[in-house]
Order: sequence, then C-alpha cells, then structure tokens
Amino acid sequence: MQFTLLSALDYAGVATFAASGALMAAQKRQDVVTFIFFAAITGVGGGTLRDLLIGAPVFWVQDAGYIVVCTLVAILVYLTRGRGVHEQTLLWLDAVGLCVYACVGAAKSLSLGVDPVICVVMGALTATFGGIIRDVLAGVPSILLSRELYITPAIVNATVFVACAMLGIDWTWASGIAVALGFIVRAGAIRWKWHMPAFRPPQDK
Amino acid sequence: MQFTLLSALDYAGVATFAASGALMAAQKRQDVVTFIFFAAITGVGGGTLRDLLIGAPVFWVQDAGYIVVCTLVAILVYLTRGRGVHEQTLLWLDAVGLCVYACVGAAKSLSLGVDPVICVVMGALTATFGGIIRDVLAGVPSILLSRELYITPAIVNATVFVACAMLGIDWTWASGIAVALGFIVRAGAIRWKWHMPAFRPPQDK
Amino acid sequence: MQFTLLSALDYAGVATFAASGALMAAQKRQDVVTFIFFAAITGVGGGTLRDLLIGAPVFWVQDAGYIVVCTLVAILVYLTRGRGVHEQTLLWLDAVGLCVYACVGAAKSLSLGVDPVICVVMGALTATFGGIIRDVLAGVPSILLSRELYITPAIVNATVFVACAMLGIDWTWASGIAVALGFIVRAGAIRWKWHMPAFRPPQDK
Repeated sequence: MQFTLLSALDYAGVATFAASGALMAAQKRQDVVTFIFFAAITGVGGGTLRDLLIGAPVFWVQDAGYIVVCTLVAILVYLTRGRGVHEQTLLWLDAVGLCVYACVGAAKSLSLGVDPVICVVMGALTATFGGIIRDVLAGVPSILLSRELYITPAIVNATVFVACAMLGIDWTWASGIAVALGFIVRAGAIRWKWHMPAFRPPQDK
Repeated sequence: MQFTLLSALDYAGVATFAASGALMAAQKRQDVVTFIFFAAITGVGGGTLRDLLIGAPVFWVQDAGYIVVCTLVAILVYLTRGRGVHEQTLLWLDAVGLCVYACVGAAKSLSLGVDPVICVVMGALTATFGGIIRDVLAGVPSILLSRELYITPAIVNATVFVACAMLGIDWTWASGIAVALGFIVRAGAIRWKWHMPAFRPPQDK
Repeated sequence: MQFTLLSALDYAGVATFAASGALMAAQKRQDVVTFIFFAAITGVGGGTLRDLLIGAPVFWVQDAGYIVVCTLVAILVYLTRGRGVHEQTLLWLDAVGLCVYACVGAAKSLSLGVDPVICVVMGALTATFGGIIRDVLAGVPSILLSRELYITPAIVNATVFVACAMLGIDWTWASGIAVALGFIVRAGAIRWKWHMPAFRPPQDK
C-alpha cells in the first residue's frame, strides 16, 4: 500500500468537511437530521463525484464507516452547539482538509491508471465539490463566486502531487510536498487575501 | 421475485413524484415541455442517484416505461390545469410516494448485497432526492431547509424495512410495516406539525 | 466508424458550450481559474451525465483533449476580454452547439444499444444539462424557466435523428437532417420569439 499517510488522513478530511456541512446547517437553524444530511453531503460529495467519473465503486458505499463518521460529527456539532469551534479554527481545518483531499483524489485516480491531466482535475473536484453542493443546497452564494483562492490551491496541490509521482518520487513524500505547497497558497488567501485579478469587461477601461 | 408488492407500487411512486414536479412547473407557469422535464426529473431523480451510487444500471434507462409514465402525468396535469387536484390531495399522495420509495430504494440496495447501513441511506436518498433536485432547478427554497419532517420519515421507513429484512421477515410484510410506520411520522408532520427541535446558537440562551 | 461528421463536430460543440460557460464567469467578474471551471462544467456537463446514465466510460476522462479545449477556450475568452464576441454571435453558436450535441448524445446512446425512446432523452440531456448546471452554480435563473424554446429544439433534433436512424438512413445524413430541423426551431425561438403556450391556472380565466 503506497499511500498509507493519505489513507490515514482520509477520514480526517471527511470529518473536517462534515463539520463544515454541519455548521452550515447550524447557521440555517436546522434540526439534527438536516445536520447529518449536510455533514454527509459535504463530507463525501466530492469523492463521490470523483468515483462516479473514474468508474470506481463509490467509496462510502463500500465502507459504511465514512457515513458513520459524518453522522457522529454532525451530532457532536449539534450537541456542543458549535461551542469551542471558532470560525477561524474551522477555516484552517477546512484548508487542511482541502489540501489532503486534493491529494487523495489525485492519488486514487492515478492508482487506477487515469491520464495524469485528468488526475489533476479529479484532485481539484474531490477537494471542492462537497462544498459546492453544500452551498447550492443551502441556497447561499457559492464559494466558487467569492473570488477567494479556493479551487486554485486544490489545483496547485493536485498538480504538484501528480508531477512528483510521475517523476518517480515516493507517494508519501509526493503528498507531503503537495499538501505543503497547496496549504501555503490557501493560507496566503486566508491570511493575506491573496487573489488573482478579476475579469474586467472592456468598457471598464 | 421477493418484492412484488413494492414492484407494483413502484410505478405509482414515480407517478406521484412526477405529479409534484409537474405542479411545480404549473406554479412557475411553464410550457408543456418544461412540465415533462420537471415531472421526469422529480419522478426518477432519487432512484437515478441511488442506482449510480450502488453501481446498478439506471432503472429508467433499462425500462422506457418510467419516462412514458412521467410524460403522461405531465401532459395530464397540463391539460386538466391541475383541476381537481387539491394541494392537500397532492401532499398526501406525496407522503405515500415518499414511504413507498424509501422502501423500494432500501430493498433494491439490499438485494444487491449493499451494507445494511448504506441501504438505509439509499432508501432515504431515493425518496427525497427527486424533490431536492426539483427545488434547486426551480430556484425555490429546498424542502430540506423547511424544518418539516421529510427526510426523517424516509429514514424511519428505510430503517424499519432493513431491520425487519435482517430479522428474516418476508419482504412484503417488512415493506408493509415500514410504509405504515414511516407514513405515521409523515402524517404527524403534515397534520399536527410534528417537528424536531431546531438548533439554537449558544448566544440565544 | 459510422458517425465521422458527428465526431468532427463534437469538439466544436464542446468549445461552443465552454465559451458560454466562460462568458458566464466574465459576467460574474471572476478570475481565470473560475473561467476554466465554468467553461469545463458547461462544456462537458451534459455529456458527462449522459455517459453516467447509459453506463459508458465518461468521455473526457478517457480523452484529456476535451478538458484541454475547455481550458484554452476559457483562457482565450479571459485574455480577449470577450472582445469581438457579440452576444448575438454567441447565441447563434450556442444554437449550433445545442443541435450538434443533441445528435451526438442520441447517436452515442443508440450505438450502445439503448432503447430509442431513451436515446431521445439522452440527446436532449446531453444538449441542455451543461447549461442548466452552469446556471445553478452561477446562481442565475435557469434557462429552463425562461419560457424560451431551448429543450424543445433539442428534443426535435434527437427525435428526428433517432427516427431517421431507425428507418435505416445513414447516420451522417440522419444527423444532417436532424441538425437542420432542430436548428430551424431554435432559430425561430431566437429570431421570431417562437414559443409554446404557458400554463395558466384555472382561476386566471
């Protein structure tokens, strides 16, 4: 098993995203079942799309543990009423989750013989789609349109991982390097508001 | 064939959800093609997601009858201008559809050897996702956020069915018991506004 | 290879839809990564859903060229700031893309032995779903609800193609006839505001 580190971090990634889904339900003042629903859809949504696209069996259908983790996280957030979880804490946890997940997604695709370019796409999708579905279902403006660097760190991450893996670097090291670089980009976006130039239509000039 | 009762009710479930999709198109004053589109997506949406997730061939792609039923229901609603279908009638039909569909979804998954915990998830998804997609596409607030008990009866239903089936009870009986219990929960929600406590953030206290 | 003409037009169809996705990102004043995201999701969204539903390997996962095309189109739109692309031009390009794509979708399904009725559904889905996802993610009212004839030309197109193919007409001819007829309906909708009667609730009379 080449990516033990990633496997170990996988559950942590799901749990982090599940927490962000549960906090969305909290913001909308829902009941505990809706907490679980949002936790699950945010936690496993990106990986589900990845598995469907690459034709792999959907991971959480094979291993009920992921849904159990999402359920427990949702109940915990509900019971503690989010106490002790500052918004900043969550933002940073989410940044870690984003980077880990982009690697997991790229690694799984690569191990199934998918074209490297598509592996980068899969890494980015795995990391971002759970949050996108969460926002659509909650009826809030998508993070997609927030002009924050969110997809970009995931792409950086997946690209670095795939490039390292292609160069023959051990996947544990490759994922370490990729997570570090992706995290720097995301951290820059959170801390120093790094962003890319927005499109300006011609008439603005 | 172990679940003849469910099979017989399957088309009825699709038709009921299709009617709720067509009525959404009516509310938005659309043309007949959009009626058919909404009827189809609401009628088969939940089961489609279930089949993709458990890796089964998508049911309505295998049997064109489901799309034909959705089309006929949509045309009927358009032509009769919803006359004779009181909102209350639809709400109760939808409640029956929800319970039947949760059973059908759980039973299909169980018969394909899916983990029982995941079968419950599949039952709930099958019953609720058509309506969720309908609301997203129509741009109306999702029933998810309405704080009504809607996912809960589907979960109760699927859980009871799976538990009975695990205990060796004949699937026809298991589905009868499950539909009855799920329906009571949904009926309580419609008739007596049963609901679960909403999340209150700490500062509310 | 029976549908060379369609294969040749396939990339053009993806590129056209990708351009419409990129222009949506332009309208929302996004950065270049979001341009690429919207271009890709609009360009390949409909075909992705089709492939998942008919159980075929997802086309762009098999051939990275499609994602490369979407990326290049997005960058081009970003760099030229949409200069030179009048809204009318795009509308007509989109009309061509819609018709080509409906044929491609129906032809692919038919070649895989799918039921003819379902092939029509697949043609319509392939042609329209990319745009529907684009609108949902951008948070703008869906073209579905605009009462414009948009799904209808796709259905006309796919129906004519499937009927011709069933009658034994060569697929190149069948697609030519289908694209022409579908295009006339769409052109009528754009140019002369052709539309179908909207639903009027009983109390309006």
